[in-house]
Amino acid sequence: MSRIPVAVLGATGTIGQRFVSLLQDHPSFDLAVVCTSERKVGGRLGDHWRLEDVPLNPDLEAMELEAIDPKVLARRGTAAAFSALPAEVAKDLEVDAARAGVAVFSNASAHRMDADVPLLVPEVNPDHLALVERQTSFSEGGFLVTNPNCSIAGLVLTLKPLADAFDFEAVHVSTYQALSGAGYPGVPSLDIVSNVVPFIEDEEEKMHQEAKKLLGTRSDRIVPSSLDVWANCVRVPVRDGHLEAVSIPLREDVTVDEVAKTLASFRGEPQRENLPTAPKQPVLVRTERNRPQPLLDGMAGEPARARGMAATVGRIRVSDRVLRFFVLSHNTLRGGAGGSVLNAELAHRRGYLD
Amino acid sequence: MSRIPVAVLGATGTIGQRFVSLLQDHPSFDLAVVCTSERKVGGRLGDHWRLEDVPLNPDLEAMELEAIDPKVLARRGTAAAFSALPAEVAKDLEVDAARAGVAVFSNASAHRMDADVPLLVPEVNPDHLALVERQTSFSEGGFLVTNPNCSIAGLVLTLKPLADAFDFEAVHVSTYQALSGAGYPGVPSLDIVSNVVPFIEDEEEKMHQEAKKLLGTRSDRIVPSSLDVWANCVRVPVRDGHLEAVSIPLREDVTVDEVAKTLASFRGEPQRENLPTAPKQPVLVRTERNRPQPLLDGMAGEPARARGMAATVGRIRVSDRVLRFFVLSHNTLRGGAGGSVLNAELAHRRGYLD
Amino acid sequence: MSRIPVAVLGATGTIGQRFVSLLQDHPSFDLAVVCTSERKVGGRLGDHWRLEDVPLNPDLEAMELEAIDPKVLARRGTAAAFSALPAEVAKDLEVDAARAGVAVFSNASAHRMDADVPLLVPEVNPDHLALVERQTSFSEGGFLVTNPNCSIAGLVLTLKPLADAFDFEAVHVSTYQALSGAGYPGVPSLDIVSNVVPFIEDEEEKMHQEAKKLLGTRSDRIVPSSLDVWANCVRVPVRDGHLEAVSIPLREDVTVDEVAKTLASFRGEPQRENLPTAPKQPVLVRTERNRPQPLLDGMAGEPARARGMAATVGRIRVSDRVLRFFVLSHNTLRGGAGGSVLNAELAHRRGYLD
Amino acid sequence: MSRIPVAVLGATGTIGQRFVSLLQDHPSFDLAVVCTSERKVGGRLGDHWRLEDVPLNPDLEAMELEAIDPKVLARRGTAAAFSALPAEVAKDLEVDAARAGVAVFSNASAHRMDADVPLLVPEVNPDHLALVERQTSFSEGGFLVTNPNCSIAGLVLTLKPLADAFDFEAVHVSTYQALSGAGYPGVPSLDIVSNVVPFIEDEEEKMHQEAKKLLGTRSDRIVPSSLDVWANCVRVPVRDGHLEAVSIPLREDVTVDEVAKTLASFRGEPQRENLPTAPKQPVLVRTERNRPQPLLDGMAGEPARARGMAATVGRIRVSDRVLRFFVLSHNTLRGGAGGSVLNAELAHRRGYLD
Repeated sequence: MSRIPVAVLGATGTIGQRFVSLLQDHPSFDLAVVCTSERKVGGRLGDHWRLEDVPLNPDLEAMELEAIDPKVLARRGTAAAFSALPAEVAKDLEVDAARAGVAVFSNASAHRMDADVPLLVPEVNPDHLALVERQTSFSEGGFLVTNPNCSIAGLVLTLKPLADAFDFEAVHVSTYQALSGAGYPGVPSLDIVSNVVPFIEDEEEKMHQEAKKLLGTRSDRIVPSSLDVWANCVRVPVRDGHLEAVSIPLREDVTVDEVAKTLASFRGEPQRENLPTAPKQPVLVRTERNRPQPLLDGMAGEPARARGMAATVGRIRVSDRVLRFFVLSHNTLRGGAGGSVLNAELAHRRGYLD
Repeated sequence: MSRIPVAVLGATGTIGQRFVSLLQDHPSFDLAVVCTSERKVGGRLGDHWRLEDVPLNPDLEAMELEAIDPKVLARRGTAAAFSALPAEVAKDLEVDAARAGVAVFSNASAHRMDADVPLLVPEVNPDHLALVERQTSFSEGGFLVTNPNCSIAGLVLTLKPLADAFDFEAVHVSTYQALSGAGYPGVPSLDIVSNVVPFIEDEEEKMHQEAKKLLGTRSDRIVPSSLDVWANCVRVPVRDGHLEAVSIPLREDVTVDEVAKTLASFRGEPQRENLPTAPKQPVLVRTERNRPQPLLDGMAGEPARARGMAATVGRIRVSDRVLRFFVLSHNTLRGGAGGSVLNAELAHRRGYLD
Repeated sequence: MSRIPVAVLGATGTIGQRFVSLLQDHPSFDLAVVCTSERKVGGRLGDHWRLEDVPLNPDLEAMELEAIDPKVLARRGTAAAFSALPAEVAKDLEVDAARAGVAVFSNASAHRMDADVPLLVPEVNPDHLALVERQTSFSEGGFLVTNPNCSIAGLVLTLKPLADAFDFEAVHVSTYQALSGAGYPGVPSLDIVSNVVPFIEDEEEKMHQEAKKLLGTRSDRIVPSSLDVWANCVRVPVRDGHLEAVSIPLREDVTVDEVAKTLASFRGEPQRENLPTAPKQPVLVRTERNRPQPLLDGMAGEPARARGMAATVGRIRVSDRVLRFFVLSHNTLRGGAGGSVLNAELAHRRGYLD
Repeated sequence: MSRIPVAVLGATGTIGQRFVSLLQDHPSFDLAVVCTSERKVGGRLGDHWRLEDVPLNPDLEAMELEAIDPKVLARRGTAAAFSALPAEVAKDLEVDAARAGVAVFSNASAHRMDADVPLLVPEVNPDHLALVERQTSFSEGGFLVTNPNCSIAGLVLTLKPLADAFDFEAVHVSTYQALSGAGYPGVPSLDIVSNVVPFIEDEEEKMHQEAKKLLGTRSDRIVPSSLDVWANCVRVPVRDGHLEAVSIPLREDVTVDEVAKTLASFRGEPQRENLPTAPKQPVLVRTERNRPQPLLDGMAGEPARARGMAATVGRIRVSDRVLRFFVLSHNTLRGGAGGSVLNAELAHRRGYLD
């Protein structure tokens, strides 16, 4: 079966390069076009490579960076585009691309809360994908699917099975967010070397509202979940991997063992359908007393293609009906490019890319 | 008035050096004896100085490190001793010193939860100090007073006025704790450079139980507060200053402004009695969107002698009866040596050191 | 004696704030005007304060930031201005200010190599100051004096006495340069957390050519020294303090002791004339096996006003006529604002500011 | 062809784990025994895994840690042992193992300078390997081969071709050495977060003397090279990868281009014989203005098995007969475990392991 030609929009940024790294050997998608902002157009993809842990395929190094033009994308037969664009650029451009018949899988926040746009984590709300059929561009073959903010993507993998199993209404969460989440150049070193910064613009609000949509039920529209995620977001001097400390008041008695089993046994559509980038087990539960850690658990996930796609939970504690645990997930893989690639794989499996 | 001769027990460690730095120019106390573990006895205080932000007084550099012997302390007329000993050493030794007639102000955890030992933060529970009169050594002029764990010392400065003003029963808190909190050599660099570690031994339990004692009421004994502090404790690559993210479900409507005023207007005995190391305002409230930060706010507190003794609060938010804010305090000053020095100043003012 | 009104140009940057911190309690200079780039004009000085180790005087917090206008400076009677401007802005503006009758003491590189402009380190080449008399603006009372690059300022304090005492022609030096040397926002955190970067634009060339001018002899003009400083410049994840590793092939037999004595006994005009910001001993020699370190030695220098103005040397070794040692100096104090303040103090003492 | 059973001595340390990572899928060697210090004996290899960038093969996780006993090694048919032991343990134990008939490839410094023990970098001095035939244990089939210190291993890959091509007698080098070079727990975080430390015990002496042996000529014995490597060694807060700044006074005119070609075209025995862990090109030359960097170039080397085995050179400059460049190599791969594995592959190819 021939692979589907795809594009990456914003291919030289932190998320853009992760898209390239995931697509450069993908079984279903063929990286045909890499687009970037005007300033870099005409340059080579390899000259901007900054991913320290994944080498760029040598045959992609000379790939030419092109300007972002939805019509050109369509004309060149790119059925899907992965967007790592800044929100303000993404706003119009992603819509234009969808109208030009391209299926857009976006990491940008611009359209996440649009009523007809799925905010999708395939293990959590795969049925939301069908929202795309309501988009006006759908008749042209184009549509828009978004992945959530990097700080809610891993957390929601735990909230879904927990909310299905146990009774609670609020989640108190504090984040330890990695530098790569701010892109490049991102956080000035003088702000963060031997320091932490308790502010990330709009992050806490996104976590609150995106959790409600992700866990919402689809009927005529998405009915938001009543669950409240109250976040305190902090940037820490870590390169990759968002750690989150979670505290949940429960309305019933639950044991640590029940929580651990609920999380470890959670499986979703990606696992059942064996999607290429799906981790075998979306939530890993560790029992060591000092895990998860960004450095050791950021790349969790098997098989090799799914490294960085599993969330890791540790230090589960229950006292007086208060459940506490830590969860870690890779912010630019599960919480970014990997999330959208998995979304595209689900769309592909559902026949939306044919 | 002549100054009271005092000793520092464990003078070369992280907390011990802070004791020395606070005592080297103290108006009421005269640093007369510095003790340390056997291995260093006979050495000079100056040879072990590692505090990067405070120089040792030149006239103290040659001060000889002595062995820790309670009887010698008593014989040399040291009315008070500040203990920066490890818990396992402190256990017997602090009791022996009290029995020898020395007033011991300890940062060690060994006796914090003993029924007759005050766990004291002078702004919070000054009346607990009178517990010392029940100690068997008190008739000899010796007694033991402890300061709380570094991660609860700053937090409780906010919980006291909040609990007095508003109705709530649980506090969810996540910590961002500095390296100096683990002492020296402490955390291996390979564990923490570009990483965070979600585990600090016994820390969460200490925060829970010490908060109950600190906020407890004194009658025949200390009746623990019913307030529950549910903590998630994390070590971060910051040199000094513990940041904490707080989330409190309220049982009434409260505004951000009411919270800010309650915190900023809080004053305690140390302020009323103008103790030397007391900050004019124990809780500072900042309105910038990205404060407090360890690097910028760790040394908060006026006048100069009280630097590092004020807690700084920022980012106060209230949504749907959930109060969130950040609080930062210096872990080896307010949360360590400074706490015990302030305790000693209160004891001195109350006549316990005469 | 009344203090001389002075201005800081570029008062909100890393060097600009150091100028303010040194001038806020200066015995001879009175900080009368703080200027900044257009964008911040009208704001308060206190709102931009980012120096973690020095608080801004409360009475300066509300000082209004003004636009940089040489004529206004002159009209308001500011006899001297300290420039922390970027080189490209400094180029014209500093000349304009001098022409308007202001004595400009600049940290900018723009005019350092101009034939009539002193590149001055008062301990090293105080006689170069007289070059200002050749400047065309001198008759109006205005002139321009520069301090050297942050990476040569500390090193030259060692090269001057060594070159006077011993015979050598080349210095091989590798630098470990702090983040504050790049200003703010400066180095992106993703470039430098758990990394070092072996490139700082133009730095090695500046070190080579500025050393020649600093150590040059003044006759009709400055005759450059024949000494060659061959540098390898590297940025490291340190907040403040440039460490440098020095290796010097000697042409005679020298002992470690001779080197240590030569360095430790070095004194210059600032010491002889007891200038306010002069360290008692410009080069401190430490004998511990692991010093100097940025964290422990960056603020070296006595008295209190001269903290950060002394260079610290350690690990002096001589083998087979190769001299090796490490030298550390504070890049924004001795290597920046402090250097220019000391220059101004020398000019003041010489009567150039009357 | 059946694989040769091998052991790792000291399998849970930083270097020991790298040995395991290189041997777990090796084409010629079969990891049969993992030994460790008494305290951990009986534990599982997987419980001590700390390598963040390489997962342990699942089938090795349960491998039992055994005590180090040379006779047992021999009895179990382990033809070769890779030693990551501390020098003081290695001293006797490696000799005992050799006497028991085991070929020992050691990263320890204990025997590097022994007259009959090869200090081997296969690209540099492959002929030194034959020294093993002089060892008294050789008749029993056992012998000892060492790899050099981590800070000279990468540098000597550049010095060998440079010394063959150009005329010079001294090398001035400053190091930027990673934390993993000190093992675990190694450097305390309080010493190195936002700091650098200009001292690594015995490191500069090792670089000087090991370079002389590595570049020495073999006749009746190894005649040390006359080349002097004058080092200044510094620890920096980087996880992996030693950067070095090199400055070489030349005695002839050389161009940057000649240097670059000399380095890039260098090939040795491992390349000619296509040893499994040999990088295709031992010295990579980069032309970007800010490379090499530990984070981006530490794992240089192709094919996949040789990642971390190539040295990367950048910023080659020549001025007035002074050659300067930076070189980076991975301290626990090329400078540690990888070096000894390559040594063993050469010994195997030469028939010494049959």
